Amino acid sequence: MDNALKLNTVVLSEDRKSIVILDQTLLPKNIKYLKLSKRDEIWEAIYKLRVRGAPAIGCAAAFGLYILASGYEGDDVEGFLSFVEKEKDYLNSSRPTAVNLSWALTRLWNMLLANKDKHTVRELKEMLGEEADSVWNEDVAISRAIGSYGFELLHHGDGILTHCNAGTLATAKYGTALAPIYIALEHGWNDLKVYCDETRPLLQGARLSAFEMQTAGVYTTLICDDMASITMKRGKINIIFVGADRVAANGDFANKIGTSGVAIMARYYGIPFYCCAPTTTIDMATKTGADIPIEERKPEEVTEMWYKERMAPEGVHVDNPAFDVTDHSLVTGIITEKGIAYPPFDKAFERMGIK
Amino acid sequence: MDNALKLNTVVLSEDRKSIVILDQTLLPKNIKYLKLSKRDEIWEAIYKLRVRGAPAIGCAAAFGLYILASGYEGDDVEGFLSFVEKEKDYLNSSRPTAVNLSWALTRLWNMLLANKDKHTVRELKEMLGEEADSVWNEDVAISRAIGSYGFELLHHGDGILTHCNAGTLATAKYGTALAPIYIALEHGWNDLKVYCDETRPLLQGARLSAFEMQTAGVYTTLICDDMASITMKRGKINIIFVGADRVAANGDFANKIGTSGVAIMARYYGIPFYCCAPTTTIDMATKTGADIPIEERKPEEVTEMWYKERMAPEGVHVDNPAFDVTDHSLVTGIITEKGIAYPPFDKAFERMGIK
Repeated sequence: MDNALKLNTVVLSEDRKSIVILDQTLLPKNIKYLKLSKRDEIWEAIYKLRVRGAPAIGCAAAFGLYILASGYEGDDVEGFLSFVEKEKDYLNSSRPTAVNLSWALTRLWNMLLANKDKHTVRELKEMLGEEADSVWNEDVAISRAIGSYGFELLHHGDGILTHCNAGTLATAKYGTALAPIYIALEHGWNDLKVYCDETRPLLQGARLSAFEMQTAGVYTTLICDDMASITMKRGKINIIFVGADRVAANGDFANKIGTSGVAIMARYYGIPFYCCAPTTTIDMATKTGADIPIEERKPEEVTEMWYKERMAPEGVHVDNPAFDVTDHSLVTGIITEKGIAYPPFDKAFERMGIK
Repeated sequence: MDNALKLNTVVLSEDRKSIVILDQTLLPKNIKYLKLSKRDEIWEAIYKLRVRGAPAIGCAAAFGLYILASGYEGDDVEGFLSFVEKEKDYLNSSRPTAVNLSWALTRLWNMLLANKDKHTVRELKEMLGEEADSVWNEDVAISRAIGSYGFELLHHGDGILTHCNAGTLATAKYGTALAPIYIALEHGWNDLKVYCDETRPLLQGARLSAFEMQTAGVYTTLICDDMASITMKRGKINIIFVGADRVAANGDFANKIGTSGVAIMARYYGIPFYCCAPTTTIDMATKTGADIPIEERKPEEVTEMWYKERMAPEGVHVDNPAFDVTDHSLVTGIITEKGIAYPPFDKAFERMGIK
């Protein structure tokens, strides 16, 4: 039924000897799948953002560690463990700040530690493969659940605005913010219209969201970020779905730069605004959005990525925050795999059993 | 005192035989002045946006018609008039939708018609020159007055956000939205900080506003349009100045796409938001912003102006409205050369004698 999902972000090959990823650095121009089995290839693919999006990176790391571990040739469990640990640390160095990367690697490693005394190397290798499969399958299940809850909010003919890319290209499958649209497609809905903010400076909206929605056969319209207001005013947007990098205990959340502006405009025009995020993204140790550090990236992303020439004067200062925080008071609901949290979010998270 | 104004957007050469314009198509990389005296050169400069901004185009057209009329070699007033009319219509065809273009040409033409029976060709030529000078001088006076009223709203150390370019590059001198900053510089203020939205899709903020503010020695920071919200939230913006393409009788106004979103965010964060516009921009025949038609431009401006390659998927729809309308309820005040109009704007315009 999910023939709308023509893209495979990250999967294990049929012979289970390589990871197959869609090289996202070539999108939207070229759809090229890479088959990765060597340690340097896998490391480079994560480092160079050929595979991106926290959940997708987690899957790549899990598959990667399984494949590399399978290459160990001895029977000695201790030797196997020290070999795997080295590979784990190596993969973990590909993007030091990506939480899902270390989370997935640690998950596989802890499973090994818990079982090393009762199993052979061969069995442990197999168990690693099963654990990597679980990482991937659970991510699909989470996205699917988010999509199903989000789908219940949709009406035929709705216009949906999204910012950045929290789609199938960022996860094992379905995505988070775009998952409700994939579920709608599975239900045979062909009349949704998606609007993608291009999302400056790195254009994830234009290059990735518009691409995957277009590929899925959805009526897709690309707009510049400063066109969101007029698009809402014209009545084209019925609902807004965005992803989240981190959700604080009070419902504030950090997401790609520009998200908070979209939320403010949505409030002004009376349009429901939903954040789509797995419960693992909700960090109860972060009290409010003020506690979330904002990564500042290099000015050249703003000034240089134009034509073949610099498009801003030399010496001009540039602010280039990669994320912003949306205040919980602007959020209609937070869609998780366990249901939709509505304000007050702290109470809702408590009821969901999030600690 | 105005040594901050190092750029001359459009002036008459000292020998009064050519227009000198700063070629804005080469900014911010190259500062190149063009000396134009031939009819095709002048037409092309307006057509190709080498000179842009409604008031600046009006000045270029007025100077242009004067220079071309001066080339008439006979003594015969009727022959002179028919020669000038042809040149007027030719220049007017360079950008059919620019109101100031036809306004300036009609002004010179009506002056000729009113004086043709009492003067020689030589005298009429001189009068055309004086009228063209008046167009330029009056534009400077209007911008200077707007700047002075706006300056009174500023405090030392203020952070000022602007969108698009309504600066000296769009007028004879000073601009509208940026005029208060030039007046502050004339008063020796060196501690203002200006933030320029880059203004997708055509980047007038990055290419023009950031450039002219940087050239004037102002501490200038460039941000992407989707960074306006976080910049306001961080307390960096004390006041917002934007220009206007048309102001309706109720204070709604059309300006470069994205302006209305900036106004909504300013309201949310409690930041004063001012529209800077000469009273000629206020159109009492336009009741509300709903009566202002919005130009839709070609999709390629959004999808193609990147690297050397297309940065959006083939076949994607694109909305590319060039302007949006900001609701009067979001506007703190409208700064004109006759003073600042505060809500209710219809009453304020009446008191200013605008009809």
